[in-house]
Amino acid sequence: MDQRPIGVFDSGVGGLTVVREIMDQLPNEEIIYFGDTARVPYGSKSKETVTKYSKQIIRFLMTKNIKAIIIACNTASSNSLEEVQRTFDIPIIGVVEPGAVMASRTTKNNRIGIIGTEATIRSKSYENAIKLHNKDIQTFSLSCPLFVPLAEEGWTNNEVAYLVAKKYLEYFHEKQIDTLVLGCTHYPLLKDVIQEVAGLNVSLINPALEVAKNLKELLLLRDGLRDSSESPKHSFYVSDNTTKFEQIAAIALKKSIPHARKIDIERY
Amino acid sequence: MDQRPIGVFDSGVGGLTVVREIMDQLPNEEIIYFGDTARVPYGSKSKETVTKYSKQIIRFLMTKNIKAIIIACNTASSNSLEEVQRTFDIPIIGVVEPGAVMASRTTKNNRIGIIGTEATIRSKSYENAIKLHNKDIQTFSLSCPLFVPLAEEGWTNNEVAYLVAKKYLEYFHEKQIDTLVLGCTHYPLLKDVIQEVAGLNVSLINPALEVAKNLKELLLLRDGLRDSSESPKHSFYVSDNTTKFEQIAAIALKKSIPHARKIDIERY
Repeated sequence: MDQRPIGVFDSGVGGLTVVREIMDQLPNEEIIYFGDTARVPYGSKSKETVTKYSKQIIRFLMTKNIKAIIIACNTASSNSLEEVQRTFDIPIIGVVEPGAVMASRTTKNNRIGIIGTEATIRSKSYENAIKLHNKDIQTFSLSCPLFVPLAEEGWTNNEVAYLVAKKYLEYFHEKQIDTLVLGCTHYPLLKDVIQEVAGLNVSLINPALEVAKNLKELLLLRDGLRDSSESPKHSFYVSDNTTKFEQIAAIALKKSIPHARKIDIERY
Repeated sequence: MDQRPIGVFDSGVGGLTVVREIMDQLPNEEIIYFGDTARVPYGSKSKETVTKYSKQIIRFLMTKNIKAIIIACNTASSNSLEEVQRTFDIPIIGVVEPGAVMASRTTKNNRIGIIGTEATIRSKSYENAIKLHNKDIQTFSLSCPLFVPLAEEGWTNNEVAYLVAKKYLEYFHEKQIDTLVLGCTHYPLLKDVIQEVAGLNVSLINPALEVAKNLKELLLLRDGLRDSSESPKHSFYVSDNTTKFEQIAAIALKKSIPHARKIDIERY
């Protein structure tokens, strides 16, 4: 047994979808969440900057006596996982590997599409992880920079969302993919229009769903689950604006959260 | 005469439009530019965070022995100008006041629309500056969060841009504005679709054009112009990724710039 909490971080609010999965699958675990709302988004930034930010956040989370870290952000997982795993002496799980395994198991014709931020696509993280799993799979990757602002504007199912999805996903015409990885935590919010434009024969993969499973396996392996004698107390931290974060968190988690605290992440 | 350079900053590359105006109107002046490409965009962030970032940047610029500062970013001008003018002992000019004066002089029916980022609109900076100039003017304000990502994606004149502009600018229908302030340095990139949707009878105001005039007046007043014995050497600094910045700068300024240097702005 290990009573210490799990650290989870994201560039903003998107990682709360991962938190919800962890709460569902591991209801006794305590979670410390950090959302980098002052420096969001990461998707257009360099590997070096994203890695620097990830390290600051991990240093902050490690002051909270945590037992493991989940990088709930695709861009940070893609660009900094290897480096932070080398740097810090704590188990760190990203979203890419679980998502890649799930996609590899789902495809029947060995043709997988991947959409994500510029930094995620540039890193080739999903491509490499999928090919490591099955070298016969062909991948087709595309960055969709407008999907995050569309989701944040709440325009997830109107004619603008449809037109933008159509314009981006044109790229996959005639690629005959049967599986499409939603390689950014915001994209599942647009899944209806993405499914409509991609076609019903394409399976959409949401890596967030797989991460909680990987965490559970890791904790079981290390005999590191928390016992249930006391119900878990979760904590939420952000680098900007707690009010807006709390509103979105309540929607994403389908329950109200304890007051989020703002910290100066640049000091870590 | 004052040979010291002018400091100019923006959350990213948008402020280069202001730099171009200064280069045109004050060709002897030396410019030190800083673009906060690691923390861009500012438009969705809190007043407190934007002010903290502005102060860090001004502290950095002041290490370069400058004689004045231009805040070329509407969000930073709107949210932090008063505070930084109180804090630092150097002339600081924002883009809002010049833009507001220009709009007030342009309107004939005293009905002005203002579009900008969430943080700019929330600040009511243009509204207050316009009313200070002429209390009889009625203003109508709207944030357009998707315009910046659209401009950065290069979708400035396609059917998505048109549809987004139509959806936002609907708000101004029946408001009978004859003048519309483009209260964000990115928006002039979308001016064709904005003009088409707003109607040809609406005058678009680009505050960047006015800022250089204000700077010229300030320098004349203080006998602070640089003499022309040596041609000016401009310097460019960013907080992330110099290559992408240099490419965009070459387009925005219509000439190649000296190598941009990356600095760690969080240290200031």
